Amino acid sequence: MDSTHALDLRSWVESSDDPQTDFPIQNLPLGMFSRDGVRPRAGIAIGDAILDLTAAASANLLSNELADVVGDCTRAGALNPLLAAGRGPLRALRAEASALLSADSPAGRRASGRVDLLVPQRDARLHLPAHVGDYTDFYASINHATNVGSMFRPDNALLPNYKWVPIGYHGRASSIVPSGTPIIRPVGQSKEEGADAPVVRPSRRMDYELEMGVWIAGGNQLGERVRITEADELIGGLSLVNDWSARDVQAWEYQPLGPFLAKSFATSVSPWIVTLDALEPFRTNAFRREVSDPQPLEYLSSTDDAERGGFAITLEVLLTSQTMREQGVDPMLVSRGSFTEMYWTIAQLVTHHASNGCNLRAGDLLGSGTVSGPAPDSRGCLLERTWKGTEPLALPTGETRAFLADGDTVTLRGSCARDGYRRIGFGEVSGTITPARA
Amino acid sequence: MDSTHALDLRSWVESSDDPQTDFPIQNLPLGMFSRDGVRPRAGIAIGDAILDLTAAASANLLSNELADVVGDCTRAGALNPLLAAGRGPLRALRAEASALLSADSPAGRRASGRVDLLVPQRDARLHLPAHVGDYTDFYASINHATNVGSMFRPDNALLPNYKWVPIGYHGRASSIVPSGTPIIRPVGQSKEEGADAPVVRPSRRMDYELEMGVWIAGGNQLGERVRITEADELIGGLSLVNDWSARDVQAWEYQPLGPFLAKSFATSVSPWIVTLDALEPFRTNAFRREVSDPQPLEYLSSTDDAERGGFAITLEVLLTSQTMREQGVDPMLVSRGSFTEMYWTIAQLVTHHASNGCNLRAGDLLGSGTVSGPAPDSRGCLLERTWKGTEPLALPTGETRAFLADGDTVTLRGSCARDGYRRIGFGEVSGTITPARA
Repeated sequence: MDSTHALDLRSWVESSDDPQTDFPIQNLPLGMFSRDGVRPRAGIAIGDAILDLTAAASANLLSNELADVVGDCTRAGALNPLLAAGRGPLRALRAEASALLSADSPAGRRASGRVDLLVPQRDARLHLPAHVGDYTDFYASINHATNVGSMFRPDNALLPNYKWVPIGYHGRASSIVPSGTPIIRPVGQSKEEGADAPVVRPSRRMDYELEMGVWIAGGNQLGERVRITEADELIGGLSLVNDWSARDVQAWEYQPLGPFLAKSFATSVSPWIVTLDALEPFRTNAFRREVSDPQPLEYLSSTDDAERGGFAITLEVLLTSQTMREQGVDPMLVSRGSFTEMYWTIAQLVTHHASNGCNLRAGDLLGSGTVSGPAPDSRGCLLERTWKGTEPLALPTGETRAFLADGDTVTLRGSCARDGYRRIGFGEVSGTITPARA
Repeated sequence: MDSTHALDLRSWVESSDDPQTDFPIQNLPLGMFSRDGVRPRAGIAIGDAILDLTAAASANLLSNELADVVGDCTRAGALNPLLAAGRGPLRALRAEASALLSADSPAGRRASGRVDLLVPQRDARLHLPAHVGDYTDFYASINHATNVGSMFRPDNALLPNYKWVPIGYHGRASSIVPSGTPIIRPVGQSKEEGADAPVVRPSRRMDYELEMGVWIAGGNQLGERVRITEADELIGGLSLVNDWSARDVQAWEYQPLGPFLAKSFATSVSPWIVTLDALEPFRTNAFRREVSDPQPLEYLSSTDDAERGGFAITLEVLLTSQTMREQGVDPMLVSRGSFTEMYWTIAQLVTHHASNGCNLRAGDLLGSGTVSGPAPDSRGCLLERTWKGTEPLALPTGETRAFLADGDTVTLRGSCARDGYRRIGFGEVSGTITPARA
């Protein structure tokens, strides 16, 4: 662990001292923000502010190489040039930003109090961090796969390939939206059990999915595979992902080629990329398989990944109905889970994805799949949480929810805590269901 | 039909008179070409040459509006700006190019013989016509779905949703490559029947899939649906697509979320976009359903689509083994089919895709799915053509093929012919299998 993680490191940005902040100086997540309609530029979250990297570059507070890449990001309106530069420049930027924001370093003393470098988060609009070339969604929680499988295939819950293949599918990139974007209830085909014909109507089984998103850095050429020991070099960082799902549409359309319109109407992403370097103290072992489970195949296996491939990230789902909002009732915690419950590590997802020579590009997004633990209150979607709607949630207002209603706001949060380290967080990704369009 | 389709229309580019050419003046397909390492620019195929649209714009032979868009395409290195402009500008460009290349129009007489406007196709490198934001692959041939279904699910060949839902799935955009790109045999997991564990090895069941590709023009906003009567406005044109498939990988990985690594290693696209306007004379009725089949649901139904939603395109697959090439043997015709065999029209594919509010963007590519007719020699992939490898093809050299061997070249061709009109063609998309990388 380098000095950017030190517990006693402090910033001259006072709000970052707040023990509740997701963004102490030990975090330094990357995002794209804008203010007053000016074109989006690159920034780093610090306390309740954003370090404006373009302003820092203009003030000659960044090295030339990084200042150039920051300029490229502004021109691109996205962090793709920085992600394309790869892990080295990402690490270098972390080190420079840490020094610049430190209360005690020479660079920090020069920058201290320069309000022109900071933008209050409340004044900024946050955008998608990167243009997503391709979005892939995995299925890496064995609890999720088992639960969903037992609902749709009672005799055959976990398919024979699950413990061998990191199952995933291509998702829709065009409909990825930043946190806060309203989610329009989709219209689609569904078919009631026993009905002769499907109906076309607004989805009646709107759901969220709590996922982590992996942002690709660098990339590989078409035809090149990625060794499991090299996979981390292709991971820029992580965000929260809500993979909204219309379960009635999904049930009718998904065979034999997988989910399509049940997912492609919207996927929400949190605005900050928490870098893999920031997450270093929170690494943990990969999922501990049962003795009867197969070991990962050779291409998916390394000692390092087994020992450090997991990330101890606590994840929460909060729900606020329109009535709760009107009555001033706090969001309700619907579930709390851990990213350590995933059967496959993110390095395994990257390596598997490229194992056929598929080229991953900087800015590509890999969803982990719904993060569900073994306990009912750690299940990461309503389909599981309410067991296909048979055990509705009771809201504090007396309302119940089998699936999402119009006006419901779903907020996902994530954070990492460990003795001897500052707690860091992911911020949040939030979306409110709006009625289907006529 | 406007005058750009007239049978007696002739160009001053003599090679376009050749009755065998795919590119008479009645076609005018769009593509991106480069020469001598200069950056790619927009062009139109005419006979054995390319009309250099940048040169035409520089010579003030295009209207200002179109000259601007052509410049944007050069800057983008792709036709996306032209596709984004939508059907109106595509039609205007067709009209201007037709006049410019005509032997008899005033504009054509001015341009006639200006070799600076033309580049021989043999001297040009052809690129992907557009940056593909999202690639979607459909499954619109009922013959293909029935054949493949009967192999994998003998009791349940055609799933109950097939005749209601235009089944599709998201594909991989990053690995879409232009014609001529070598196709590296992918490595992947597969599992032999009865084996205890999967193996990781180069695919032993490499296949092609003969498809048409639909290029999106204009587009729709997230949350907006597209009426079936408006769908044509979102279709810029068509190309040939080879959706290479590793069948052994596919069989093991595809449940429950659909094909993934079995497809994402490469998809080849022909370099010319034959515009919907060029295809106007070759429109025909949509697939004639059986009396017992359901009618398309209302959102997928219009009189116009039923009467004119089909396109009479003849499609061919040609195979050349390395030995055939070494012995100078001509490519072997493996199958010949018709795009009229598709159960769903391309307008239905577009409308269904956007029916949940999913935003389609200019340059998005929609694959039709494998084009297979009812006759064995009209089946569009080896899986069907050799019936899962049980009826291998006999090549003229005495070789046999159940699936593709290293060194095999697969070439797809397409063309349209109708009494009273010039035959137009799509050119070809070609790819040669190279050995898996160690």
